[in-house]
Amino acid sequence: MRSEESPSVSDYVHVLPIRVYYEDTDAAGIVYYANYLRYAERARTEMLRLAGVDQTTLWCRTGVRFAVRSCAIDYLAPAVLDDTLEVHSRLLRVGGASIRAEQVVRRDHMALVRLKLRIACFRETGQPARMPAEVRAALTSLQQSELRA
Amino acid sequence: MRSEESPSVSDYVHVLPIRVYYEDTDAAGIVYYANYLRYAERARTEMLRLAGVDQTTLWCRTGVRFAVRSCAIDYLAPAVLDDTLEVHSRLLRVGGASIRAEQVVRRDHMALVRLKLRIACFRETGQPARMPAEVRAALTSLQQSELRA
Amino acid sequence: MRSEESPSVSDYVHVLPIRVYYEDTDAAGIVYYANYLRYAERARTEMLRLAGVDQTTLWCRTGVRFAVRSCAIDYLAPAVLDDTLEVHSRLLRVGGASIRAEQVVRRDHMALVRLKLRIACFRETGQPARMPAEVRAALTSLQQSELRA
Amino acid sequence: MRSEESPSVSDYVHVLPIRVYYEDTDAAGIVYYANYLRYAERARTEMLRLAGVDQTTLWCRTGVRFAVRSCAIDYLAPAVLDDTLEVHSRLLRVGGASIRAEQVVRRDHMALVRLKLRIACFRETGQPARMPAEVRAALTSLQQSELRA
Repeated sequence: MRSEESPSVSDYVHVLPIRVYYEDTDAAGIVYYANYLRYAERARTEMLRLAGVDQTTLWCRTGVRFAVRSCAIDYLAPAVLDDTLEVHSRLLRVGGASIRAEQVVRRDHMALVRLKLRIACFRETGQPARMPAEVRAALTSLQQSELRA
Repeated sequence: MRSEESPSVSDYVHVLPIRVYYEDTDAAGIVYYANYLRYAERARTEMLRLAGVDQTTLWCRTGVRFAVRSCAIDYLAPAVLDDTLEVHSRLLRVGGASIRAEQVVRRDHMALVRLKLRIACFRETGQPARMPAEVRAALTSLQQSELRA
Repeated sequence: MRSEESPSVSDYVHVLPIRVYYEDTDAAGIVYYANYLRYAERARTEMLRLAGVDQTTLWCRTGVRFAVRSCAIDYLAPAVLDDTLEVHSRLLRVGGASIRAEQVVRRDHMALVRLKLRIACFRETGQPARMPAEVRAALTSLQQSELRA
Repeated sequence: MRSEESPSVSDYVHVLPIRVYYEDTDAAGIVYYANYLRYAERARTEMLRLAGVDQTTLWCRTGVRFAVRSCAIDYLAPAVLDDTLEVHSRLLRVGGASIRAEQVVRRDHMALVRLKLRIACFRETGQPARMPAEVRAALTSLQQSELRA
C-alpha cells in the first residue's frame, strides 16, 4: 500500500542531534508530545539546507513555502531531560508539488518517535503551488546521491 | 474501515474556544503546525475535567497518567493571528487501557485541522496500565450521556 | 524612584484568567519560566482588544506593531499543573511612542510573577514609530476610565 | 551601582550557537520575545555541563534545582528566521545560594538581546537551599579558569 517504502526508495538519512532542555519537557518528566514536531521541523530545515534549499531565500525569490499537509506520529517511548537524541530524516518521494518524508527520533539505537509526513508547496495566499524546478532538482539529487552511496 | 466511526459510536462533542496569539504563530504568518497539538491537549484536559477526571488528582491517587500513543493529523487550512478557533473533541472508543479520540480545530464552520488520537494509560515507570475503574466509568458515562441526548 | 508608580498613575487592572496545562510546565513540575511571558502577552493583547485596539488591524492599517523593548521579571513563587491563574495588567504610562505596563500573575491572592515592561511602536523595517493617534487616545481613555472609577 | 560588573568580575564567556527555526518566530516575522529565555536557558545548561554540573544528576543526588529568581531583559534588535545567533554567557557572581549571570544573544558582532539574571537553588518543596559545595566549587573554578586566561 505504501509504495514509497519499497526497496527502490531512497535510504537517504540526514541526522540532526538534539539535546533535551527544560523547555522541551513537561510536568510528567518527559518531552511534551508536541515538541517532537519542533525537533522534526528543525531536522527537515537542516536537511533542506544541506541540499542547498534555504527556506527564507526560497520564499523571497519564489513566493513559495513548504507546509506540512499531514502527519502520522507514533510515540513509542519517552525522552527525558538531558537526553541526547538524533532525528533521522529521509525523503520517501519527491513529487511535483509535494514531498513524502519519514523521520525517526532516536536515543542511541532506540526509536522513540516515528513520523510520516506529507509536505506540500504553498503560495502566500494559501494556494497549492508547484515546487520550483531547482528545489525539486536539489531534493531529487539528495535522494540520488544517497542511492549511489 | 475505521469501525470506531460507525453509527454506534459516541457523537459527544466537547467544544473549547481558543484565541490565537503571537506565541502561536510563526514567520509564515500562520499558526505553527506543532501548536495544534497544544490546543488539542488543552481541549482533552478540559473534556476530562468536565467528566470529573482531574489529571493531577489522577496521578497523585493512582500513579497513572494518560499519554498519547499515536496521532494522525490533517492540516486542511491555516489559522492566523487573532483568529477565534474552536476545538471539537469526542471520544470514539473507551477501552480498558486506552481511548480513541477525534478532535477538529474549526474556525466558524470550517475544519482547519483534524486529529485522530490513541491515548493510553501509563505508570511513572513508563509501563502501560489499566485505566482506573472510576476514570473508565466517568469517560463511558460521558459517552452515554451524549448518546442519550 | 520609579515615578510611574506614583499615586497619579492609573490603577487600571485588566484581569485575564489562565489555566495551566501540560504544555506550560517543565520537568521540575512547575510552569517553565519563559511561559509567563506568553501569559503576559495574551493578557496585554486582550487588554488592548478591550480598548478597541486589534493588533492585526493596527498592523494592516498603519504598518505599526507593538514590541517589548525591555522587561524586568521577578519570579516569586511557582505555578503548577492545573492551577488557575490570573494575569492582572495595568498601564503605568502612555507616551507618544511607548507604553509602560505592569503585570502580575496571581494564584488566588498570591503574586507569583511580577513583570514591568516597556513596549514601543515599530514599523516593519524595525524603526521606532509614533503611536497612531487613535491608539494613543484609546489607551489614554482606558487609563482615565479607571481613574474615574 | 552594579558591583558585579566591576573589573574584578569574571570575564568568562561561554558561547552557544543557536539557529533560528520557524518554531522560534512569530507572525511579526521575528523571534518571539519569550523564546530568548529558552535560548538563554539552553546556554546556561551547557555552561553548567561544561563545568561538570549536570542538572539531572544534581537533582537526583542532592534534591536541589536551580531556578531563575529575577531577570531583566533588553530587546535591542530582532532576530529573524534562519539567523545564526550566539548566546554569550558569563557568571557575574557565585554566592552561597545564588548566582548572578549575564547573557547576550548576538548576531555577528551585534547584541540583539541582553539578559541579567539572578538564579537561586531550591528544594522540591520550593524552599531556598544552599548550593551544594561541589557545585559551588565547580562554578567558582569556571570563573577562575577564565580569570587566569
